[in-house]
Amino acid sequence: MNHASNHVSNTPFADKLIVQEVAPRDGLQIEPTWVDTADKVALINALSTAGFTRIEAGSFVSPKAIPALRDGDAVFQRIERHAGVIYVALVPNLKGAERALAAKADELNLVMSASQTHNRANMRMSCESSLTAFGDIVRHVKGSGVLLNASVATAFGCPFEGTIDEDRVIGIVDTYREMGIEGITLADTTGMANPRQVTRLVARVLERVEPSALTLHFHNTRGLGLANVLAAYEAGARRFDAALGGLGGCPFAPGASGNICTEDLVNMCDETGIRTGINLEKLLALSRALPALLGHDVPGQVAKAGRNSDLHPVPDYVLQI
Amino acid sequence: MNHASNHVSNTPFADKLIVQEVAPRDGLQIEPTWVDTADKVALINALSTAGFTRIEAGSFVSPKAIPALRDGDAVFQRIERHAGVIYVALVPNLKGAERALAAKADELNLVMSASQTHNRANMRMSCESSLTAFGDIVRHVKGSGVLLNASVATAFGCPFEGTIDEDRVIGIVDTYREMGIEGITLADTTGMANPRQVTRLVARVLERVEPSALTLHFHNTRGLGLANVLAAYEAGARRFDAALGGLGGCPFAPGASGNICTEDLVNMCDETGIRTGINLEKLLALSRALPALLGHDVPGQVAKAGRNSDLHPVPDYVLQI
Repeated sequence: MNHASNHVSNTPFADKLIVQEVAPRDGLQIEPTWVDTADKVALINALSTAGFTRIEAGSFVSPKAIPALRDGDAVFQRIERHAGVIYVALVPNLKGAERALAAKADELNLVMSASQTHNRANMRMSCESSLTAFGDIVRHVKGSGVLLNASVATAFGCPFEGTIDEDRVIGIVDTYREMGIEGITLADTTGMANPRQVTRLVARVLERVEPSALTLHFHNTRGLGLANVLAAYEAGARRFDAALGGLGGCPFAPGASGNICTEDLVNMCDETGIRTGINLEKLLALSRALPALLGHDVPGQVAKAGRNSDLHPVPDYVLQI
Repeated sequence: MNHASNHVSNTPFADKLIVQEVAPRDGLQIEPTWVDTADKVALINALSTAGFTRIEAGSFVSPKAIPALRDGDAVFQRIERHAGVIYVALVPNLKGAERALAAKADELNLVMSASQTHNRANMRMSCESSLTAFGDIVRHVKGSGVLLNASVATAFGCPFEGTIDEDRVIGIVDTYREMGIEGITLADTTGMANPRQVTRLVARVLERVEPSALTLHFHNTRGLGLANVLAAYEAGARRFDAALGGLGGCPFAPGASGNICTEDLVNMCDETGIRTGINLEKLLALSRALPALLGHDVPGQVAKAGRNSDLHPVPDYVLQI
């Protein structure tokens, strides 16, 4: 295995940062207001024209567990598929994987927490049971051409257990890869990561996984979302989840921010010269429509403040000084 | 002049990050609700026991310009002075400096924008007139033992003019120093800075100014506040302004965040192992009292989400899995 920096210089990811838009899934799943299937489809279609190459478009979980996303099948059937866009579905088990394949998802995202307690709280099973289910899914999907990604949730900390041993996270990454799962996501599920920890863990994972197969999933719960992105980027990571408007959140921290905000991330990239291929103007228009769709303000900041280049008119009195 | 990294390794600032609390001044100045003098004094007294070594406690500006801070004289007279705490006053002109000295401020902070247009909008005078006023203040303060700091506002961008030439910022820093002003603040007045720009400009300024004499003042308007702090810290900067609760803001960006939030900054430092000497628990209690004082929610996030170490109770159903 090469060191991360060698990977980076030898790949087309050298400069580009890939954003996977997760608002339709991770963003909407805790929204108390029902979003009509047609509105979900319209949002995904609009996102598909903004320059994204990856959109997490829905999940195939129990409608009792996540009622807000109970129309995953219909969403996947009705969206316009844009060339070059990978439409990802989150699936918790074999039944979900079957539904996702029937709905023609391009990629399945599986989730297990590094924390046993969090996995039991979130998935209602032990980590061992999750891995057994992953095996069933891998066998079912094999040969279908559908891509597989698996997330290590609570990779940077657990709201029940606290600190998570980094060796445990690395062990799970190795297990996923040995099972034949290509893509790996390190998820900071409740926003506990800090930049130094991110630098360290990303460097270790990039000794095992190509940058093109590693996604970082950060929440901005404690204001460190974009700082963590920069730390991961500097450590060689090139793929990041983000949600339009900063939707999403943590049921254990009411009022705290959710996922890192896509338009704030793209603005940071634009300002620092990191290419994303995403049209910020389109994103801002979509984000500014969210409060009307959801019935509440959203955390994203650039949609409120405007871009740096949105200059303000000079007050009249200034001209007389 | 030595390079920044040499400065850092040779100073007691090598590891410690100094936070100057600015909520009583920059935080309150745009609040529409009047905060009683007694409440201001109580806030400053409480902050004085939380480990800060520097508090911007008020300003001596025209009561017409900033009615929220019209009681600066009374605030400075009534606060308890804690040993080791420097109480700073913002002053716009010689008259303000005279009032601040009478009120026994330990340090005066002068402000001029790098942008002519912003200086005219904010200070209602040209940069040349501001520098003339600074000269009057320097002569008046000389020999009094009172410290002097001057801020370069809009150092990272101007909401009217856009990009600010870095050479102009450096030139202003040189001018301040030649005038005999010891402390320099680079202020990102409307939250336009990005981490790469911060790295570059801080490195240039630290070729001229010791880390112990340079303060960075960031706003979190576009979500980059803490990322900018880390970039500046890594470039050798050790002093940062921040406001309890993330108070403050930009009159040109309603709804956007204000100053970087003190407790979110201290939490980042605690998590990443950077010493501040500040008691986060005390800060969180003070921040959580702000909405009742001001009548509105505040942007700070850790006060809502809790610290990483504030673990959540395990749900009952988990114990049965």
